[in-house]
Amino acid sequence: MKIYLIRHGIAEERSEHQSDENRALTDQGIAKTNKVAEKLSNLNITFDCIFTSPLIRAKQTAEILHNAQLSLKIIEFSPLAPDGKIEDFLEFLSNSEYTNKNAIALVGHQPDLGHWAELLIWGKIQQKLTLKKAGIISIEINKSKDMLGTGELFLLTSPKWMIES
Amino acid sequence: MKIYLIRHGIAEERSEHQSDENRALTDQGIAKTNKVAEKLSNLNITFDCIFTSPLIRAKQTAEILHNAQLSLKIIEFSPLAPDGKIEDFLEFLSNSEYTNKNAIALVGHQPDLGHWAELLIWGKIQQKLTLKKAGIISIEINKSKDMLGTGELFLLTSPKWMIES
Repeated sequence: MKIYLIRHGIAEERSEHQSDENRALTDQGIAKTNKVAEKLSNLNITFDCIFTSPLIRAKQTAEILHNAQLSLKIIEFSPLAPDGKIEDFLEFLSNSEYTNKNAIALVGHQPDLGHWAELLIWGKIQQKLTLKKAGIISIEINKSKDMLGTGELFLLTSPKWMIES
Repeated sequence: MKIYLIRHGIAEERSEHQSDENRALTDQGIAKTNKVAEKLSNLNITFDCIFTSPLIRAKQTAEILHNAQLSLKIIEFSPLAPDGKIEDFLEFLSNSEYTNKNAIALVGHQPDLGHWAELLIWGKIQQKLTLKKAGIISIEINKSKDMLGTGELFLLTSPKWMIES
């Protein structure tokens, strides 16, 4: 199974007037995320499900991917909020219909997505992966084995490397 | 400093009639590598030097990057041949003019480039990085520290994710 960890697009700055949860994508964030979705579509990438953090900027990012028909399903998934635990995701996955699928997308935040990727690949967090906004980390998981520390990294890219300049 | 580890493009199959060193890029390998070079050029990526394995398929790949004016310099570098040692590269680098540059490219082979990347990032080989032909792994190195185990991975991509489909 392939897991695509996708960071939300460029969002409004933090401010006193708005809670972190409600920060929305900027126009530039929407435009870039649309281009990333178009690239994924051109490559015939599809997801059996898009799981998204409940925060607005992540949900908007996930909806852009969903509207580009990269997946028929989109699910809000609280462990993808900041400081969520990968164990909660793995437990959910192993007890769900998605455990036997080909590809899923997880839309969330840094540094959490980078930490989850490191846990899937190496079994520990070393903070060595740089993931830009609207960037993607993709990992091939062997479901017959313990999922932590057994994945193989086959893609880590910022939007600029995907989008025609 | 950024280090771009670039695997040679698609080459002729191994055969009894030709030594491994002399296997050349196929027409498809040349075409894809040209597109990767074009993408790098569009992104304004430049290298202070391209170091290449002495094997034909790597030298052809490096020459395509050189002809695309991604670097003014190209140097054949024997530690980039299969089974070469990263320690030889690091010793050369620290004693060369390239130790204070912004970006260099290393054109070579798998599994060696993946192993070098893992040594630069994590300090040990775990064989967790998938690098396709004409694919790129890019690492940011902090030259003030020991270079093994201190790099940060900011790009790992196959050609298809760089080239318009």
